[in-house]
Amino acid sequence: MAKSRKPLGTVEEIEAAYYDAISHADLDALMALWAEDEDIVCVHPGAPRLIGHAAIRASWEVIFERGGLQIRPVQLHAAHNMLTVVHSLIEEVRQAPREGGDAHILVTNVYLKTPRGWRLTMHHASMAPGKIPETQTVATVLH
Amino acid sequence: MAKSRKPLGTVEEIEAAYYDAISHADLDALMALWAEDEDIVCVHPGAPRLIGHAAIRASWEVIFERGGLQIRPVQLHAAHNMLTVVHSLIEEVRQAPREGGDAHILVTNVYLKTPRGWRLTMHHASMAPGKIPETQTVATVLH
Repeated sequence: MAKSRKPLGTVEEIEAAYYDAISHADLDALMALWAEDEDIVCVHPGAPRLIGHAAIRASWEVIFERGGLQIRPVQLHAAHNMLTVVHSLIEEVRQAPREGGDAHILVTNVYLKTPRGWRLTMHHASMAPGKIPETQTVATVLH
Repeated sequence: MAKSRKPLGTVEEIEAAYYDAISHADLDALMALWAEDEDIVCVHPGAPRLIGHAAIRASWEVIFERGGLQIRPVQLHAAHNMLTVVHSLIEEVRQAPREGGDAHILVTNVYLKTPRGWRLTMHHASMAPGKIPETQTVATVLH
């Protein structure tokens, strides 16, 4: 893995680097953003859970055989403390619309502060019905 | 919300209380386990993202109209630090199999340490194809 890259200071930089690596199909750059922990977890939309660097790396290697993916994270909601950042976002995929089309991808990215800086420990992506909502879901009280 | 319930000390107790509340369709007990933060996020399988107490409570109210759900969390993988616990698990639903049947539910639960103790800030559930794997996904190196 590419461990000698320039340090990335903030979670926002790590997340930007994550989607940048995906856009360039840069497997080493992508995997360097994950925590050095064999309990890292990745769930691709509609796919089984993957645990650990080898399984996650292999999955992206297959995805990257078709080249990079232009993904823009939108509608970010964050929860955080000093050691953790939890991002909930929607992935706007600008090419290769999925079968069906009328769906969008919901993502949870969890970053932990490690000795090497902020690193991704969890990526959970799943399909939701309908196009990307124009605004985030509005809280409604039914009771 | 029920704020006077007995204190729950560990994430494991919070998570057990969460699935217990679901089994009893106890909306107040369920909502009391979430962080007091309007950025809490809940994604039900195949459904749009919900943000905030009111939207999340309303969704569970609808689910509970049919009664409680017997869910057993299995195959837990955890990442944690002093302030955060990230659980990846599979929900084994013991009744009312979903349409299709040959699928299982992958879940990310994120707990943050709050002044009131550990509280849920994120629940992301999604469907994965196939039955629950007998063992967790084995890391494989393809390269």
